[in-house]
Amino acid sequence: MLKYQKIFNYFIILLLLFPGIIIYPQIDSTGLEKYDNVADKIIRSSLTENRGYEFLRELCEIGPRLSGSENYEQAIIWAKNKLKSIGCDTIWLQPVMVPHWVRGNIEKSVIINSDPVEEKNLNIAALGGSIGTNPQGITANVIEVNSFDELKKMQNEVKDKIVFFSRPLDSGLINTFAGYGGAVNQRVHGAIEAAKYGAVGVMIRSITTKHDNVPHTGVMYYVDSLPKIPAVALGYQDADYLHNELIKHPDLKLNIKLDCQTLPDVKSSNLIAEIKGTEKPDEIIVVGGHLDSWDVGCGAHDDGAGCVQSIEVLDLLKRLGIKPKRTIRCVLFNNEENGSRGGIEYGKFAGSSNEKHIAAIESDRGGFTPVGFSVESDSTVLNKLKNFLPVLEKCNISWVKKGGSGVDISNIKNITAKIGYVPDSQRYMDVHHSANDVFEEVHPRELELGSAAIAILAYLISEEGL
Amino acid sequence: MLKYQKIFNYFIILLLLFPGIIIYPQIDSTGLEKYDNVADKIIRSSLTENRGYEFLRELCEIGPRLSGSENYEQAIIWAKNKLKSIGCDTIWLQPVMVPHWVRGNIEKSVIINSDPVEEKNLNIAALGGSIGTNPQGITANVIEVNSFDELKKMQNEVKDKIVFFSRPLDSGLINTFAGYGGAVNQRVHGAIEAAKYGAVGVMIRSITTKHDNVPHTGVMYYVDSLPKIPAVALGYQDADYLHNELIKHPDLKLNIKLDCQTLPDVKSSNLIAEIKGTEKPDEIIVVGGHLDSWDVGCGAHDDGAGCVQSIEVLDLLKRLGIKPKRTIRCVLFNNEENGSRGGIEYGKFAGSSNEKHIAAIESDRGGFTPVGFSVESDSTVLNKLKNFLPVLEKCNISWVKKGGSGVDISNIKNITAKIGYVPDSQRYMDVHHSANDVFEEVHPRELELGSAAIAILAYLISEEGL
Repeated sequence: MLKYQKIFNYFIILLLLFPGIIIYPQIDSTGLEKYDNVADKIIRSSLTENRGYEFLRELCEIGPRLSGSENYEQAIIWAKNKLKSIGCDTIWLQPVMVPHWVRGNIEKSVIINSDPVEEKNLNIAALGGSIGTNPQGITANVIEVNSFDELKKMQNEVKDKIVFFSRPLDSGLINTFAGYGGAVNQRVHGAIEAAKYGAVGVMIRSITTKHDNVPHTGVMYYVDSLPKIPAVALGYQDADYLHNELIKHPDLKLNIKLDCQTLPDVKSSNLIAEIKGTEKPDEIIVVGGHLDSWDVGCGAHDDGAGCVQSIEVLDLLKRLGIKPKRTIRCVLFNNEENGSRGGIEYGKFAGSSNEKHIAAIESDRGGFTPVGFSVESDSTVLNKLKNFLPVLEKCNISWVKKGGSGVDISNIKNITAKIGYVPDSQRYMDVHHSANDVFEEVHPRELELGSAAIAILAYLISEEGL
Repeated sequence: MLKYQKIFNYFIILLLLFPGIIIYPQIDSTGLEKYDNVADKIIRSSLTENRGYEFLRELCEIGPRLSGSENYEQAIIWAKNKLKSIGCDTIWLQPVMVPHWVRGNIEKSVIINSDPVEEKNLNIAALGGSIGTNPQGITANVIEVNSFDELKKMQNEVKDKIVFFSRPLDSGLINTFAGYGGAVNQRVHGAIEAAKYGAVGVMIRSITTKHDNVPHTGVMYYVDSLPKIPAVALGYQDADYLHNELIKHPDLKLNIKLDCQTLPDVKSSNLIAEIKGTEKPDEIIVVGGHLDSWDVGCGAHDDGAGCVQSIEVLDLLKRLGIKPKRTIRCVLFNNEENGSRGGIEYGKFAGSSNEKHIAAIESDRGGFTPVGFSVESDSTVLNKLKNFLPVLEKCNISWVKKGGSGVDISNIKNITAKIGYVPDSQRYMDVHHSANDVFEEVHPRELELGSAAIAILAYLISEEGL
């Protein structure tokens, strides 16, 4: 008995002396060393062959891929051929009806009478979903606000004016998605809020970390109970300009001309391809991104990167002769940008099929250096995924944490884990939804490390289950 | 007694049931929460004010800053004025004699007689320290090798030839510094090895992750016991070209003309500035980078970034009114690129002064997103630094590990910890030592997060000691 007491006392003293030494659930990666070799091969192959990067070059040559557009359909054909050339076991198109908004040819805004200032053209882009104007455009005074609260306080001054939502992305936050999240309500719901008080149009300061003059578009919504008013994004520098002009000339007027419009919905599709599992083919691990993009730039980061990474996951398995136990399925979703119809449609299919969805990994945060995986699951599954860290770390993954996954896979119910691939976010909002989002902004090594990280995680889940 | 036994048994059973629950030294950050506020302020200020980024713009406008050059002296004046404007307590120049190599105006290489191939100019840059040629240049056959071993095996064929070291940086490694380390002996010691067997010149494939045609220079050495032969770096694409031509035309000849030369040593200086500690002014924490750069590009990442980050650490403390307990000293070292004379000189000073150097943090791996800190210290100090992680993580620092620190601070003896700031390495070797290393390649947020990470670490060490 004394022996136990002594050992126990000794242990307690140790704890008191060194509070840093406490009982802590260490990562248990016992037995995972057997995957080191496969992980190394995946990383080397992606970094030296750059196949995903070359896929992206080809995809970007098609141009922007807004859902409903011809380019989108060309991109689907390109991706289908690519997945066919890889030698996938199954490739199919899942029909999806998508919205069809078109920007048109006229997109112009001018400060027309801020005497003594000369006429000044502003760099604008219609927000996705905005109605157009009549050919003369709308001409109105401007009221600048930084929030919906401020708008509400000034509601009596809003009637017949253009509301200029001027709150910038907060660049003081490390995570640029957090900055984006803090500003995006102006874009998404600004036209609704402004219409409540009789505004005739909405202009928002572009939501971006790059203070150039390139407008950043993105989805906006109307409600049927309120008038629909045109809504545009303004280049960051011009937003500063307008802000300063309004101080000097509060009565200045803006003219905005747009001929964008929403056409009837279009038949389109998601693209699905897979490598069947050798042991449990009915257990599915999805890797995916959205093939649609905004109609400016070419959606290289958003989400060309996620698409080619998802394609490359299958390509890596094939070219390295890796045969997963469970089915690994690449899903290229349609219409994430303005409706999520593709994600919803795939979710319906997943809910009604006899397959069992084990995990879905979404890549839709740009093709930058891998950082972590953000997981929606219970804590047992989360811990199992954390156990993979010693293998994932080979590929620059520093953490696996509880957190949001992704818009498209959010529609898959009865799934063990929904996982968001998280790369470094510092440069993403420079290009997001703008003409800046082009192939040249993607770095081959950064993109390829993402392919490798997702491939390794998908393979580990395939072999170990969840 | 029984009680203890039971508790102990219970504990043992728990261990057997859950092998993942083992005794593990958890990070003890007790009491560090008090620094959260300061860390948040530092991060917000760096990301929103971008002062370091603007410093870098000004520094890069001076042009490249090879030690011994006029530009270097201009950069010292610029930095001194900058540190003065910040309001440092002390600023001084530490004299350093530095080598003075100049590239000259002639730098040309042509394949002259690989009939039927037409004359072809190759993109070259003399390696730093290379001798020049006579005006006619050297003209010789070429022998291509991938390693010193291969050179040795072919030693009987080397005489009177130009040795073409063709081994590329291994892009299959995740850490680009590891890839660089695996190829750089060709550049540093290639002329020595080739001269052993009677070669008349050396050409190396540029050590780079970017497969464009921009040559990447860097230091090379001679030994007095062997003939000195000219040495140049060749653009990666031209290295491929030459490799292919040599297969078709093994007897092709190269002409290389250089008028680079080494002039007598020059009087120059390190630049030192500090904010005196309020409680322990004689205990010193160095933050530093090297002000010299290669003479191509403008040394924006290497090591303009490290210099402006070091300057900004002091600027951040001053502009936020933070008064450190220990002295935080910015050292801009001279001549890291081709002699480390600045680092050696500072090391001598540190060794002979009455001050106590607690820590030195070097930033010389580019101005990219922060990843970690690599520490040379004993394990007690390392653990103390690891305890800072919960604060450092605010600034994207994922780890503190044992590892190499930096070339310049390696000369400081009797110091508690030498620390290398480690940012993401994926894009560094694209620009390193080449005309690609320009201001436009540095991203403001990535650079500024580095300033913030170093400032936070320096401040934590200042307040907590080591």
